[in-house]
Amino acid sequence: MSNEAFDAVDIIRTKRDRGTLSEAQIDWTIDAYTRGVIADEQMSALNMAILLNGMDRAEIARWTAAMIASGERMDFSSLRTPAGAVKPTADKHSTGGVGDKITLPLAPLVAVFGVAVPQLSGRGLGHTGGTLDKLESIPGWRAGLSNDEMLTQLQDVGAVICAAGSGLAPADKKLYALRDVTGTVEAIPLIASSIMSKKIAEGTGALVLDVKVGSGAFMKDEASARELAETMVALGTDAGVKTVALMTNMRTPLGLTAGNAIEVEESVEVLAGGGPADVVELTVRLAEEMLAAAGVHDADPAAALADGRAMDVWNAMIAAQGGDPRAALPVAKESEVLYAPADGVLAELDALQVGVAAWRLGAGRARKEDVVQAGAGVRMHAKPGDVVRRGQPLMTLLTDTPEKFDRAKEALEGAAVIVPEGDRPDQRLIIDRIA
Amino acid sequence: MSNEAFDAVDIIRTKRDRGTLSEAQIDWTIDAYTRGVIADEQMSALNMAILLNGMDRAEIARWTAAMIASGERMDFSSLRTPAGAVKPTADKHSTGGVGDKITLPLAPLVAVFGVAVPQLSGRGLGHTGGTLDKLESIPGWRAGLSNDEMLTQLQDVGAVICAAGSGLAPADKKLYALRDVTGTVEAIPLIASSIMSKKIAEGTGALVLDVKVGSGAFMKDEASARELAETMVALGTDAGVKTVALMTNMRTPLGLTAGNAIEVEESVEVLAGGGPADVVELTVRLAEEMLAAAGVHDADPAAALADGRAMDVWNAMIAAQGGDPRAALPVAKESEVLYAPADGVLAELDALQVGVAAWRLGAGRARKEDVVQAGAGVRMHAKPGDVVRRGQPLMTLLTDTPEKFDRAKEALEGAAVIVPEGDRPDQRLIIDRIA
Repeated sequence: MSNEAFDAVDIIRTKRDRGTLSEAQIDWTIDAYTRGVIADEQMSALNMAILLNGMDRAEIARWTAAMIASGERMDFSSLRTPAGAVKPTADKHSTGGVGDKITLPLAPLVAVFGVAVPQLSGRGLGHTGGTLDKLESIPGWRAGLSNDEMLTQLQDVGAVICAAGSGLAPADKKLYALRDVTGTVEAIPLIASSIMSKKIAEGTGALVLDVKVGSGAFMKDEASARELAETMVALGTDAGVKTVALMTNMRTPLGLTAGNAIEVEESVEVLAGGGPADVVELTVRLAEEMLAAAGVHDADPAAALADGRAMDVWNAMIAAQGGDPRAALPVAKESEVLYAPADGVLAELDALQVGVAAWRLGAGRARKEDVVQAGAGVRMHAKPGDVVRRGQPLMTLLTDTPEKFDRAKEALEGAAVIVPEGDRPDQRLIIDRIA
Repeated sequence: MSNEAFDAVDIIRTKRDRGTLSEAQIDWTIDAYTRGVIADEQMSALNMAILLNGMDRAEIARWTAAMIASGERMDFSSLRTPAGAVKPTADKHSTGGVGDKITLPLAPLVAVFGVAVPQLSGRGLGHTGGTLDKLESIPGWRAGLSNDEMLTQLQDVGAVICAAGSGLAPADKKLYALRDVTGTVEAIPLIASSIMSKKIAEGTGALVLDVKVGSGAFMKDEASARELAETMVALGTDAGVKTVALMTNMRTPLGLTAGNAIEVEESVEVLAGGGPADVVELTVRLAEEMLAAAGVHDADPAAALADGRAMDVWNAMIAAQGGDPRAALPVAKESEVLYAPADGVLAELDALQVGVAAWRLGAGRARKEDVVQAGAGVRMHAKPGDVVRRGQPLMTLLTDTPEKFDRAKEALEGAAVIVPEGDRPDQRLIIDRIA
C-alpha cells in the first residue's frame, strides 16, 4: 500500500464516468502531479476526460486554488499613493490575438491615473505574438525583473510589463507543457484555471479580461468565448479580485501591424495621440474598465493619450527596464508588397491567416527555443470596411530572410476578400461585456 | 520538420473532436507508439478520447491489423492429421471471470476429436484468476514453450496451454500496460482489438469467445457485453477466422472453487466424468462450438468426458510440459469455514466478492511481480438455487497466511443472499450466442 491519500486511476475513472471530483481529490491531484506521483500519462488521460466531460464551477474553482497553492503569491500591499494609502492595482489579460499590442499603450495609460499595473506577460507561441517579444525589439529593454525591482518600478513609475517568475503556479507551468503535446489545450476548465491561477497568485486587486473571438483567436465562436469569459469572471470574483471581461472581435487583426518592432511603433503612435482607430478604441475602453474596477471613476484616458501623459509613463517604464524609448527600432532587411486584385470594399482580412504569415516571416516561433526576428511581420494598408482600388498596396510582408516570402504568401491566399462597393462588413470591435 | 508522416497531436485532436482516423493514421499511430515516437502521455490522451468518443468498425479493424503487424504471426499449417491433411485448429478466449477454469478441461476435450488446440494464456491480475497460475500449481509443469515445442506438442498430443511469447502483437503489450495505469482499460474498441490482435496473430483457424456478463466480469451489463462480442466476432470473421461468441453468466462464480490448485482439482473431476453441473455444461457447450467452427460436426464431447478419452489427453498434455498429472496438489496451510446464517434458498453468491476474497487470500496478485499461493482460494459448498440450512458450511477460505482471513471476510460481507424458499433465482448460464 502507498501512503498517498488517493489513487490516480480512481480519480481518472471518476471524471471519465462523468463524476464530480471532491475538493480533497483535486488538491491531491495537483499536488501529486507537481511531486511526480501522478505520471504525465495519467494526467493527460485525466485532462482528456476533463476536456470531453467538463468540470462544474466548484471543481474549476478548487482546481485553480490548488494550482495557486502549488507556488508563491505576490503581495502589492506595500505600494502607496502620494497620500499614503494602499495603491490600487489593476491588470489586463488577453486570451491572445493577431496584432494585439494593446498591453503596450494600456499599461502606462492606466498608470497615469495612480493605479499600479503589474503586467506579467509571456512570449508568443504559434500565430499569436507575445508581448515580451514585441518589447524586446526595443534596444536594451529586458523582460526579467526580480520581485523587488518590480515593486520599486510599480511604486516609482506605476507600470511594469515583465516576465512572470517561475514561482507563480508552477503546477500550471508543468500542466500547460503537457497539454500542449497531448491535444488537451482546448478545455475551457483548464484554460480558465491556467489563466486565473496566475492572475490571482500575482495578487492584482482588479482584472480586466479581453476574451478574443474569431478566426485569429483561441475561441472561434461566441458561445465558447462566453463560457470561458463567464468561468474566468466567476473564478476571479470568488477569489476577491474585481474581475470584468470584454468579448472582442478577432476575425481581423487589431490595428495595421502584426509583428514585433512594427507593433511597438504602432503602440507609440497611439501613445502620441494617433494610431489606428480600433487600437485606440480598445485601449481606451480597457483602460476605463481597469480604472473603474480599481475604483477610479473620474478618469479620462482618451485625454491622457492626447496630452502626452501616457507617453511620459511609457518612456519612464521602458527606461526603468534598461530600454531606450527614443532609439530607432530594428527594420526588416527585405520587404514584398501585395496589391489589391480588384476594386471594391475590403470585406474580410482574416486574422488567422495574417497571424500565420507574420509567424512564418519570422515574427513568431514554432518552438519555445526558437528566436524571433524583431523586424519581421505584416504591415497592413487597408482594414475591413475600407474602399480599395485595384493595384493599391494591401499588405507589406517584412522579413530578414526572403526565402520565407513564399510560405507567408501561401498562408495569405484568400485572406483578403474584396466585394463590390456597398457590402460593408459588420466589424463591431466589442461584442459583449461580462461582469 | 520531422520526417514522420503524421503528427500525434493532430491525431489526438481528430479523435477528440469525434472524427474518424484514416487507415494511414492508425498504422502510423501503432507503429510510432511502438517506436517511442508517440509518447505515453500522448497515447493515453488518445486512449481516453477513444474510450469516450468510440471508434467505428473500420477503425477498430485497422487498429487490430496494425497491432498484428507490430509483431510476428504464428503458423500452424505444418500440423497434419493421420491421413496427411492439414489439421484444423481451434482456440477459446474468455474475457475473464471468477472460478473460470474451463480452459483446463476444454483444451484436451476438443483435442480428442483431432482438432489442435493452441491455447495461449495469461496470468491473473486483480480478482480474476489466470489459467497459467492455476496450472503452475501442478508440480513440475512449465508455462514457457518455444514455438517449436508448441508445434511438436500440438502434433503429438493435440493440445497445449502455454504462455504467449512476447513476439505476438508487442504493441498490444505496451498499450495494455499503459491502459492499466491510466483508467482506459474499459474501452470496447481497445479491449476488442487487444484480444483479437493476439488471437489472429496466433493463427488459429477457429475461435470461440466466452464473453462474461455480471458482477465478476469485466462487462457488468448485457448491452456492453453484446457490443464487445459483436465487435470481436466481426474482427475475427473479417480476418478469416471462423469466430463465434457465447455470452455467459458471471453473476456468480463458475463451479465450486475459486483459486489455483483447487480449480485444477475441480477440472480433473470434470475430466473424470464428474464435477459441478455448470462447469460441465459450459465445457461441453464450448467444445461443441469449437468443434463445429473447426468443421467437426459429429463429435460427442460429453461422451469423451465420461469415457476417459479427455483425461488421457490431459495427462499427456500435462506430462509434455514437465508436469506430473498424478502428483498431489499443494494444499493451503490454514482454513476457515463460513456458515449459513439462516434457512432458505441461496439466491445470490456474488462473483466479484468471491473473486476479491480469493485474491486477498493469496490466490491472485495485485501487481505483475507478485507471487501467488498455489493452495489459496475459496471453496464453495452451495450455489445459487440450492436449499441451505442455518449453520451449514457455505464457504471454506483457504490460505497459507491466516492474517489474510479478516480482509477476505470483509470482501465477502453480503455476498451470499439467502431468501425464503420458493424464490429460486434465474441462473441461466448461457445468455446468448453471437455468430
